[in-house]
Amino acid sequence: MKIIYSERHRLHHGEREMYRGQLVPCFEKPERAQFVYDAVKERKVGEILEPKEFPVSAIERVHAPRYIRFLEQAWDLWTAQGYTNDALPAVWSIRGHRDDIEPENFSGKLGLYSYDSGTPLMAGTWAAVKTGADIALTAQELVTGGERAAFALSRPPGHHAGRDFMGGYCFVNNAAVAAQGFRDHGAERVVVLDVDYHHGNGTQSIFYERSDVMFLSIHGDPRTEYPFFLGHANEIGNGEGVGYNKNYPLAAGSSNALWFDALGDAVRRINDYRADALVISLGVDTFADDPISKFQLREPEYRKLGAQLAALKLPTVFVLEGGYAVAEIGHNVAHVLQGFEDAGS
Amino acid sequence: MKIIYSERHRLHHGEREMYRGQLVPCFEKPERAQFVYDAVKERKVGEILEPKEFPVSAIERVHAPRYIRFLEQAWDLWTAQGYTNDALPAVWSIRGHRDDIEPENFSGKLGLYSYDSGTPLMAGTWAAVKTGADIALTAQELVTGGERAAFALSRPPGHHAGRDFMGGYCFVNNAAVAAQGFRDHGAERVVVLDVDYHHGNGTQSIFYERSDVMFLSIHGDPRTEYPFFLGHANEIGNGEGVGYNKNYPLAAGSSNALWFDALGDAVRRINDYRADALVISLGVDTFADDPISKFQLREPEYRKLGAQLAALKLPTVFVLEGGYAVAEIGHNVAHVLQGFEDAGS
Repeated sequence: MKIIYSERHRLHHGEREMYRGQLVPCFEKPERAQFVYDAVKERKVGEILEPKEFPVSAIERVHAPRYIRFLEQAWDLWTAQGYTNDALPAVWSIRGHRDDIEPENFSGKLGLYSYDSGTPLMAGTWAAVKTGADIALTAQELVTGGERAAFALSRPPGHHAGRDFMGGYCFVNNAAVAAQGFRDHGAERVVVLDVDYHHGNGTQSIFYERSDVMFLSIHGDPRTEYPFFLGHANEIGNGEGVGYNKNYPLAAGSSNALWFDALGDAVRRINDYRADALVISLGVDTFADDPISKFQLREPEYRKLGAQLAALKLPTVFVLEGGYAVAEIGHNVAHVLQGFEDAGS
Repeated sequence: MKIIYSERHRLHHGEREMYRGQLVPCFEKPERAQFVYDAVKERKVGEILEPKEFPVSAIERVHAPRYIRFLEQAWDLWTAQGYTNDALPAVWSIRGHRDDIEPENFSGKLGLYSYDSGTPLMAGTWAAVKTGADIALTAQELVTGGERAAFALSRPPGHHAGRDFMGGYCFVNNAAVAAQGFRDHGAERVVVLDVDYHHGNGTQSIFYERSDVMFLSIHGDPRTEYPFFLGHANEIGNGEGVGYNKNYPLAAGSSNALWFDALGDAVRRINDYRADALVISLGVDTFADDPISKFQLREPEYRKLGAQLAALKLPTVFVLEGGYAVAEIGHNVAHVLQGFEDAGS
């Protein structure tokens, strides 16, 4: 399958994130994409292409324009105050607080548009993030144009980013952008299946009231796992979207059998939905040796996952999400893609 | 007037808070209360008494029991995981996220019950916070019992703490606890007037749907000043509470004339309300030389404020809130209290 990649992801390289009361080196770093690039190249998964450039309006189909405006301007606003360090928010708009007025103050804006303190913003963030969305859109365009599948090798990840918020290392929701791209180019029903260890709270919230994009997520139970405040089984959608959101929260440490039970159910639902296109939020922090996650997948499971996704026989875009055991992340991703290719041929 | 104080505030002494992308030494520190103690003692503002102990149920009249349970247990939960540094949250439950399920994970709990990353929690936090509430309740009990006024010299401050959230250096809302104490001991209508530079978002949210406690706040405009997401002029209360919440957001740098215009309006409203008791959230970060705030009050203004509060002729509890120009904080507080005493005699 075609692989879309750009070196511009390197422009985003956060120094430190808040973790258990301290600032620690970022888990989400450029080496992640490098490992994936190296592995898919070495394993000859497919031709590696540069992304096209798309207008920002394609991103604003799933993100609030005022939020995107903020991301574009954030670094300039921040440095205009004399700062040179990465920007990290320090105050948030939780329940009972307002989000209808954008503060003039930079710290206020940054807090309004975020939900964690693990997502540093720096000089190159917007350029990297914009390119990440372009990568997802290029992959979607190729698949809309007839390719069986494509892999958006984008970084930073996207599935924690909501309509107007960043968090969990994510700024723009690449999977949601791709899904909307499918919708805007002929697909009537699109599925986003999120197999990252962490619930795709951003993607869920973007499509929660819609029936034209179904969201399914298999992830660590939010009672114990990040992002804690979304991802429970009883989140089934709202309004038009009721029945089009499905979460499979699994206890940390769950067996691969349980994981594939969830995947089997998801596959049945996707088939019943008669989707026209499929977007996979491909996190491989489900890996048995991942440093911050607690599932048990390894090469055979990743290949099996790829094969089961291929059996859906849908035009498919894979979008890179999490995965932090950097040395192995590339091979884990490649196993999924090769499992898909081997089964689909 | 009687002053209630305990050395136990020292048990809470945060090391560092997130501020503009970095961990910096806490602005809110034990020396603040020491300076106030020294000034009121030196100026012979009144007899200094130890607080009584009150049951936690008195705090739970304005705070969610599950939140108080968390504060009581937080340090033990945190250290049980092997940590010894101050706990600071890293992920929050913003719009679209859930707050009905308390995560089992400590980081999840801490994030659920907070809204900023400037409020470190440590071994002695609960003991200090509980004593702070006892101080407020002791002051209220004295005034309910016939004292003209009392000063709750408590620390950490409280007015940013809501029914189930901490933030802005605050954990338990001492002013709200005192106001509820008045209600629970015969007062039919109670006013909380907040003159801290920062909007009392916690106090507002606690009483927002109630008509029996009126909340008024004069503060830096949240468009540019912390806490950013509450404190606008059009927040007038909800349901039963409509008309019983009044905000006076003033532009950073506002003149003292503007500040006293707002106070004059507040005084008229308090008189019209025919309150039975008054609680003053007394922050003195309105001081002209405060390092993080931008109003221009000095000794004459603080004395005038005290005099105008005395003219309300209401049983009055002063509760210490913010004020960070540590050397002067004590004298600023004393000027208000002495202005009150001089006018009231």
